[in-house]
Amino acid sequence: MACLAEYGWAGSTVAVVAERAGVSRGAAQHHFPTREDLFTAAVEYVAEERSSALRALVPAGPAHRRAAVEGIVALYTGPLFRAALHLWVAASDEDQLRPRVTELEARVGRESHRIAVELLGADESVPGVRETVQGLLDMARGLGLATLLTDDARRRERVVAEWARILDGVLG
Amino acid sequence: MACLAEYGWAGSTVAVVAERAGVSRGAAQHHFPTREDLFTAAVEYVAEERSSALRALVPAGPAHRRAAVEGIVALYTGPLFRAALHLWVAASDEDQLRPRVTELEARVGRESHRIAVELLGADESVPGVRETVQGLLDMARGLGLATLLTDDARRRERVVAEWARILDGVLG
Repeated sequence: MACLAEYGWAGSTVAVVAERAGVSRGAAQHHFPTREDLFTAAVEYVAEERSSALRALVPAGPAHRRAAVEGIVALYTGPLFRAALHLWVAASDEDQLRPRVTELEARVGRESHRIAVELLGADESVPGVRETVQGLLDMARGLGLATLLTDDARRRERVVAEWARILDGVLG
Repeated sequence: MACLAEYGWAGSTVAVVAERAGVSRGAAQHHFPTREDLFTAAVEYVAEERSSALRALVPAGPAHRRAAVEGIVALYTGPLFRAALHLWVAASDEDQLRPRVTELEARVGRESHRIAVELLGADESVPGVRETVQGLLDMARGLGLATLLTDDARRRERVVAEWARILDGVLG
Protein backbone atom coordinates (compact mmCIF):
# COMPACT_ATOMS: atom_id res chain seq x y z
CA MET A 1 0.00 0.00 0.00
CA ALA A 2 2.85 2.37 0.81
CA CYS A 3 4.44 1.69 -2.60
CA LEU A 4 1.16 2.38 -4.41
CA ALA A 5 0.58 5.59 -2.42
CA GLU A 6 4.15 6.80 -3.00
CA TYR A 7 5.09 5.64 -6.49
CA GLY A 8 1.70 5.13 -8.18
CA TRP A 9 0.76 2.12 -10.28
CA ALA A 10 3.49 2.59 -12.89
CA GLY A 11 6.24 2.65 -10.25
CA SER A 12 4.91 -0.18 -8.10
CA THR A 13 6.28 -3.35 -9.65
CA VAL A 14 6.28 -6.64 -7.75
CA ALA A 15 10.08 -6.28 -7.46
CA VAL A 16 9.74 -2.84 -5.80
CA VAL A 17 7.13 -4.16 -3.34
CA ALA A 18 9.14 -7.31 -2.54
CA GLU A 19 12.24 -5.24 -1.77
CA ARG A 20 10.25 -2.89 0.49
CA ALA A 21 8.68 -5.88 2.27
CA GLY A 22 12.08 -7.54 2.69
CA VAL A 23 11.07 -10.72 0.84
CA SER A 24 12.35 -12.24 -2.37
CA ARG A 25 10.57 -11.53 -5.62
CA GLY A 26 9.91 -15.26 -5.94
CA ALA A 27 8.22 -15.40 -2.53
CA ALA A 28 5.98 -12.45 -3.44
CA GLN A 29 5.05 -14.09 -6.74
CA HIS A 30 4.34 -17.39 -5.03
CA HIS A 31 1.51 -15.74 -3.07
CA PHE A 32 0.44 -13.26 -5.76
CA PRO A 33 1.13 -14.54 -9.29
CA THR A 34 0.40 -11.16 -10.91
CA ARG A 35 0.70 -7.52 -9.94
CA GLU A 36 -3.10 -7.24 -10.31
CA ASP A 37 -3.52 -10.04 -7.70
CA LEU A 38 -1.12 -8.34 -5.32
CA PHE A 39 -2.67 -4.89 -5.41
CA THR A 40 -6.36 -5.78 -5.46
CA ALA A 41 -5.70 -8.09 -2.47
CA ALA A 42 -3.77 -5.37 -0.64
CA VAL A 43 -6.43 -2.71 -1.16
CA GLU A 44 -9.21 -5.10 -0.12
CA TYR A 45 -7.34 -6.24 2.98
CA VAL A 46 -6.63 -2.73 4.20
CA ALA A 47 -10.17 -1.57 3.40
CA GLU A 48 -11.55 -4.43 5.53
CA GLU A 49 -9.17 -3.65 8.37
CA ARG A 50 -10.19 0.00 8.38
CA SER A 51 -13.90 -0.82 8.21
CA SER A 52 -13.59 -3.14 11.20
CA ALA A 53 -11.61 -0.53 13.11
CA LEU A 54 -14.29 2.09 12.37
CA ARG A 55 -17.07 -0.26 13.53
CA ALA A 56 -15.19 -0.94 16.76
CA LEU A 57 -14.29 2.68 17.52
CA VAL A 58 -17.36 4.73 16.69
CA PRO A 59 -20.58 4.30 18.70
CA ALA A 60 -23.62 3.73 16.46
CA GLY A 61 -26.97 5.49 16.41
CA PRO A 62 -28.61 8.91 16.11
CA ALA A 63 -26.96 10.24 19.30
CA HIS A 64 -23.49 9.96 17.75
CA ARG A 65 -24.03 11.29 14.21
CA ARG A 66 -21.19 13.82 14.21
CA ALA A 67 -18.69 11.12 15.24
CA ALA A 68 -20.17 8.77 12.61
CA VAL A 69 -19.78 11.33 9.81
CA GLU A 70 -16.21 12.10 10.96
CA GLY A 71 -15.37 8.38 10.99
CA ILE A 72 -16.86 7.79 7.54
CA VAL A 73 -14.99 10.76 6.05
CA ALA A 74 -11.76 9.51 7.66
CA LEU A 75 -12.13 6.25 5.65
CA TYR A 76 -11.50 8.31 2.51
CA THR A 77 -8.46 10.26 3.61
CA GLY A 78 -4.95 9.08 4.33
CA PRO A 79 -2.68 6.54 2.63
CA LEU A 80 -5.36 3.86 1.96
CA PHE A 81 -7.53 6.20 -0.08
CA ARG A 82 -4.46 7.59 -1.82
CA ALA A 83 -3.34 4.07 -2.78
CA ALA A 84 -6.85 3.08 -3.90
CA LEU A 85 -7.06 6.24 -6.02
CA HIS A 86 -3.87 5.32 -7.85
CA LEU A 87 -5.31 1.88 -8.49
CA TRP A 88 -8.62 3.31 -9.81
CA VAL A 89 -6.95 5.76 -12.15
CA ALA A 90 -4.59 3.07 -13.47
CA ALA A 91 -7.55 0.72 -13.91
CA SER A 92 -9.44 3.29 -15.96
CA ASP A 93 -6.68 3.03 -18.60
CA GLU A 94 -5.71 -0.64 -18.35
CA ASP A 95 -8.02 -3.34 -19.70
CA GLN A 96 -6.43 -6.09 -17.61
CA LEU A 97 -6.82 -4.24 -14.34
CA ARG A 98 -10.24 -2.62 -14.87
CA PRO A 99 -12.62 -5.59 -14.23
CA ARG A 100 -10.72 -6.55 -11.07
CA VAL A 101 -10.79 -3.07 -9.63
CA THR A 102 -14.41 -2.45 -10.66
CA GLU A 103 -15.46 -5.60 -8.82
CA LEU A 104 -13.31 -4.71 -5.79
CA GLU A 105 -14.71 -1.18 -5.71
CA ALA A 106 -18.30 -2.49 -5.81
CA ARG A 107 -17.60 -4.84 -2.87
CA VAL A 108 -15.84 -2.20 -0.78
CA GLY A 109 -18.58 0.31 -1.67
CA ARG A 110 -21.36 -2.02 -0.45
CA GLU A 111 -19.50 -2.63 2.79
CA SER A 112 -18.91 1.10 3.37
CA HIS A 113 -22.61 1.71 2.75
CA ARG A 114 -23.58 -0.97 5.30
CA ILE A 115 -21.28 0.54 7.91
CA ALA A 116 -22.52 4.08 7.22
CA VAL A 117 -26.18 3.01 7.66
CA GLU A 118 -25.33 1.24 10.90
CA LEU A 119 -23.24 4.05 12.39
CA LEU A 120 -25.72 6.77 11.43
CA GLY A 121 -28.63 4.75 12.76
CA ALA A 122 -30.36 5.42 9.41
CA ASP A 123 -33.68 3.76 8.54
CA GLU A 124 -33.44 2.78 4.88
CA SER A 125 -37.11 1.81 4.71
CA VAL A 126 -37.86 5.57 4.66
CA PRO A 127 -37.88 6.86 1.04
CA GLY A 128 -34.79 8.90 0.18
CA VAL A 129 -32.67 7.68 3.11
CA ARG A 130 -30.68 5.28 0.93
CA GLU A 131 -29.76 8.09 -1.49
CA THR A 132 -28.99 10.42 1.41
CA VAL A 133 -26.42 7.96 2.79
CA GLN A 134 -24.99 7.38 -0.71
CA GLY A 135 -24.58 11.13 -1.16
CA LEU A 136 -22.68 11.33 2.12
CA LEU A 137 -20.30 8.61 0.95
CA ASP A 138 -19.81 10.46 -2.35
CA MET A 139 -19.05 13.62 -0.39
CA ALA A 140 -16.52 11.72 1.75
CA ARG A 141 -14.84 10.49 -1.44
CA GLY A 142 -14.77 14.02 -2.85
CA LEU A 143 -13.25 15.36 0.38
CA GLY A 144 -10.60 12.64 0.12
CA LEU A 145 -9.81 13.68 -3.43
CA ALA A 146 -9.39 17.31 -2.33
CA THR A 147 -6.83 16.13 0.23
CA LEU A 148 -4.67 14.50 -2.45
CA LEU A 149 -2.70 17.66 -3.27
CA THR A 150 -3.18 19.90 -0.25
CA ASP A 151 -3.82 19.27 3.41
CA ASP A 152 -7.21 20.89 3.77
CA ALA A 153 -8.03 19.40 7.19
CA ARG A 154 -9.46 22.67 8.54
CA ARG A 155 -11.82 23.21 5.63
CA ARG A 156 -12.83 19.52 5.79
CA GLU A 157 -13.61 19.84 9.50
CA ARG A 158 -15.98 22.76 8.90
CA VAL A 159 -17.74 21.00 6.01
CA VAL A 160 -18.11 17.81 8.08
CA ALA A 161 -19.56 19.74 11.04
CA GLU A 162 -22.13 21.49 8.84
CA TRP A 163 -23.14 18.36 6.91
CA ALA A 164 -23.38 16.27 10.09
CA ARG A 165 -25.86 18.87 11.32
CA ILE A 166 -27.81 18.75 8.03
CA LEU A 167 -27.84 14.92 8.00
CA ASP A 168 -29.03 14.84 11.58
CA GLY A 169 -32.02 16.96 10.62
CA VAL A 170 -32.78 14.90 7.52
CA LEU A 171 -32.45 11.46 9.16
CA GLY A 172 -34.45 12.45 12.23
CA MET B 1 -7.48 16.76 -23.02
CA ALA B 2 -8.45 13.65 -24.98
CA CYS B 3 -4.88 12.32 -24.71
CA LEU B 4 -4.80 12.88 -20.95
CA ALA B 5 -8.22 11.22 -20.50
CA GLU B 6 -7.26 8.25 -22.69
CA TYR B 7 -3.57 7.62 -22.01
CA GLY B 8 -3.03 9.21 -18.60
CA TRP B 9 -0.10 11.47 -17.72
CA ALA B 10 2.60 8.88 -18.41
CA GLY B 11 1.32 8.24 -21.93
CA SER B 12 0.64 11.87 -22.85
CA THR B 13 3.95 13.20 -24.12
CA VAL B 14 4.11 16.44 -26.12
CA ALA B 15 4.88 14.32 -29.21
CA VAL B 16 1.69 12.25 -28.73
CA VAL B 17 -0.43 15.40 -28.31
CA ALA B 18 1.19 17.13 -31.29
CA GLU B 19 0.47 14.15 -33.53
CA ARG B 20 -3.14 14.00 -32.37
CA ALA B 21 -3.54 17.74 -32.96
CA GLY B 22 -1.94 17.46 -36.39
CA VAL B 23 0.84 19.94 -35.65
CA SER B 24 4.59 19.51 -35.49
CA ARG B 25 6.26 18.85 -32.17
CA GLY B 26 8.23 22.05 -32.64
CA ALA B 27 5.05 24.10 -33.08
CA ALA B 28 3.56 22.60 -29.90
CA GLN B 29 6.75 23.35 -27.97
CA HIS B 30 6.85 26.90 -29.30
CA HIS B 31 3.54 27.63 -27.55
CA PHE B 32 4.09 25.36 -24.54
CA PRO B 33 7.78 24.92 -23.66
CA THR B 34 7.13 22.08 -21.20
CA ARG B 35 4.57 19.31 -20.82
CA GLU B 36 3.52 20.91 -17.50
CA ASP B 37 2.75 24.17 -19.36
CA LEU B 38 0.72 22.34 -21.98
CA PHE B 39 -1.48 20.34 -19.63
CA THR B 40 -2.13 22.91 -16.93
CA ALA B 41 -3.12 25.37 -19.70
CA ALA B 42 -5.39 22.77 -21.33
CA VAL B 43 -7.18 21.83 -18.09
CA GLU B 44 -7.63 25.50 -17.15
CA TYR B 45 -8.95 26.43 -20.59
CA VAL B 46 -11.51 23.64 -20.70
CA ALA B 47 -12.57 24.26 -17.07
CA GLU B 48 -13.24 27.92 -17.96
CA GLU B 49 -15.16 26.96 -21.10
CA ARG B 50 -17.37 24.56 -19.15
CA SER B 51 -17.97 27.05 -16.34
CA SER B 52 -19.08 29.69 -18.84
CA ALA B 53 -21.34 27.20 -20.60
CA LEU B 54 -22.94 26.23 -17.26
CA ARG B 55 -23.52 29.89 -16.36
CA ALA B 56 -25.17 30.49 -19.72
CA LEU B 57 -27.36 27.38 -19.71
CA VAL B 58 -28.71 27.03 -16.19
CA PRO B 59 -31.10 29.65 -14.77
CA ALA B 60 -29.98 30.96 -11.36
CA GLY B 61 -31.92 31.26 -8.12
CA PRO B 62 -33.91 29.26 -5.57
CA ALA B 63 -36.63 28.34 -8.11
CA HIS B 64 -34.17 26.28 -10.18
CA ARG B 65 -32.18 24.41 -7.54
CA ARG B 66 -32.58 20.92 -9.01
CA ALA B 67 -31.23 22.13 -12.37
CA ALA B 68 -28.40 23.96 -10.58
CA VAL B 69 -27.34 20.82 -8.66
CA GLU B 70 -27.52 18.75 -11.85
CA GLY B 71 -25.39 21.30 -13.71
CA ILE B 72 -22.81 21.48 -10.92
CA VAL B 73 -22.53 17.68 -10.73
CA ALA B 74 -22.17 17.54 -14.53
CA LEU B 75 -19.01 19.70 -14.22
CA TYR B 76 -17.35 16.75 -12.48
CA THR B 77 -18.26 13.96 -14.87
CA GLY B 78 -17.15 13.37 -18.42
CA PRO B 79 -13.78 13.70 -20.15
CA LEU B 80 -12.72 16.99 -18.49
CA PHE B 81 -12.96 15.59 -14.99
CA ARG B 82 -11.31 12.38 -16.13
CA ALA B 83 -8.41 14.32 -17.63
CA ALA B 84 -8.10 16.56 -14.56
CA LEU B 85 -8.09 13.48 -12.33
CA HIS B 86 -5.16 12.00 -14.25
CA LEU B 87 -3.33 15.29 -13.83
CA TRP B 88 -4.03 15.44 -10.06
CA VAL B 89 -2.89 11.89 -9.43
CA ALA B 90 0.27 12.42 -11.49
CA ALA B 91 0.91 15.70 -9.61
CA SER B 92 0.63 13.96 -6.26
CA ASP B 93 3.73 11.92 -7.19
CA GLU B 94 5.73 14.45 -9.23
CA ASP B 95 7.46 17.35 -7.53
CA GLN B 96 7.70 19.42 -10.72
CA LEU B 97 4.01 19.15 -11.50
CA ARG B 98 2.54 19.44 -8.00
CA PRO B 99 2.81 23.23 -7.34
CA ARG B 100 1.37 24.01 -10.80
CA VAL B 101 -1.60 21.70 -10.39
CA THR B 102 -2.22 22.75 -6.77
CA GLU B 103 -2.39 26.38 -7.86
CA LEU B 104 -4.62 25.51 -10.84
CA GLU B 105 -6.92 23.44 -8.65
CA ALA B 106 -7.29 26.31 -6.14
CA ARG B 107 -8.22 28.73 -8.94
CA VAL B 108 -10.70 26.35 -10.60
CA GLY B 109 -12.13 25.48 -7.16
CA ARG B 110 -12.78 29.14 -6.29
CA GLU B 111 -14.48 29.71 -9.63
CA SER B 112 -16.67 26.58 -9.23
CA HIS B 113 -17.65 27.78 -5.77
CA ARG B 114 -18.62 31.23 -7.11
CA ILE B 115 -20.76 29.64 -9.83
CA ALA B 116 -22.42 27.24 -7.39
CA VAL B 117 -23.35 30.09 -5.01
CA GLU B 118 -24.78 32.09 -7.91
CA LEU B 119 -26.76 29.24 -9.47
CA LEU B 120 -28.15 28.02 -6.15
CA GLY B 121 -29.11 31.54 -5.12
CA ALA B 122 -27.32 30.85 -1.82
CA ASP B 123 -26.81 33.60 0.77
CA GLU B 124 -23.31 33.13 2.15
CA SER B 125 -23.83 35.71 4.89
CA VAL B 126 -25.94 33.08 6.66
CA PRO B 127 -23.73 30.93 8.95
CA GLY B 128 -23.14 27.43 7.55
CA VAL B 129 -24.16 28.25 3.95
CA ARG B 130 -20.57 28.49 2.72
CA GLU B 131 -19.78 25.02 4.12
CA THR B 132 -23.04 23.64 2.74
CA VAL B 133 -22.09 24.74 -0.80
CA GLN B 134 -18.54 23.37 -0.34
CA GLY B 135 -19.96 20.02 0.75
CA LEU B 136 -22.10 19.92 -2.39
CA LEU B 137 -19.02 20.51 -4.55
CA ASP B 138 -17.17 17.76 -2.67
CA MET B 139 -20.12 15.45 -3.29
CA ALA B 140 -20.07 16.33 -7.01
CA ARG B 141 -16.34 15.48 -7.11
CA GLY B 142 -17.01 12.16 -5.35
CA LEU B 143 -19.80 11.33 -7.80
CA GLY B 144 -17.38 12.07 -10.64
CA LEU B 145 -14.81 9.74 -9.14
CA ALA B 146 -17.42 6.95 -8.89
CA THR B 147 -18.06 7.39 -12.62
CA LEU B 148 -14.41 6.76 -13.48
CA LEU B 149 -14.75 2.97 -13.65
CA THR B 150 -18.46 2.36 -14.13
CA ASP B 151 -21.27 4.33 -15.68
CA ASP B 152 -23.45 4.87 -12.63
CA ALA B 153 -25.66 7.55 -14.19
CA ARG B 154 -28.86 6.09 -12.73
CA ARG B 155 -27.55 5.95 -9.18
CA ARG B 156 -26.12 9.45 -9.60
CA GLU B 157 -29.48 10.77 -10.78
CA ARG B 158 -31.24 9.45 -7.67
CA VAL B 159 -28.59 10.86 -5.32
CA VAL B 160 -28.74 14.24 -7.09
CA ALA B 161 -32.56 14.35 -6.85
CA GLU B 162 -32.52 13.60 -3.13
CA TRP B 163 -29.72 16.02 -2.29
CA ALA B 164 -31.23 18.80 -4.40
CA ARG B 165 -34.36 18.38 -2.25
CA ILE B 166 -32.29 18.42 0.98
CA LEU B 167 -30.29 21.49 -0.15
CA ASP B 168 -33.46 23.31 -1.09
CA GLY B 169 -34.74 22.84 2.46
CA VAL B 170 -31.43 23.89 4.02
CA LEU B 171 -30.85 26.99 1.86
CA GLY B 172 -34.42 28.20 2.21
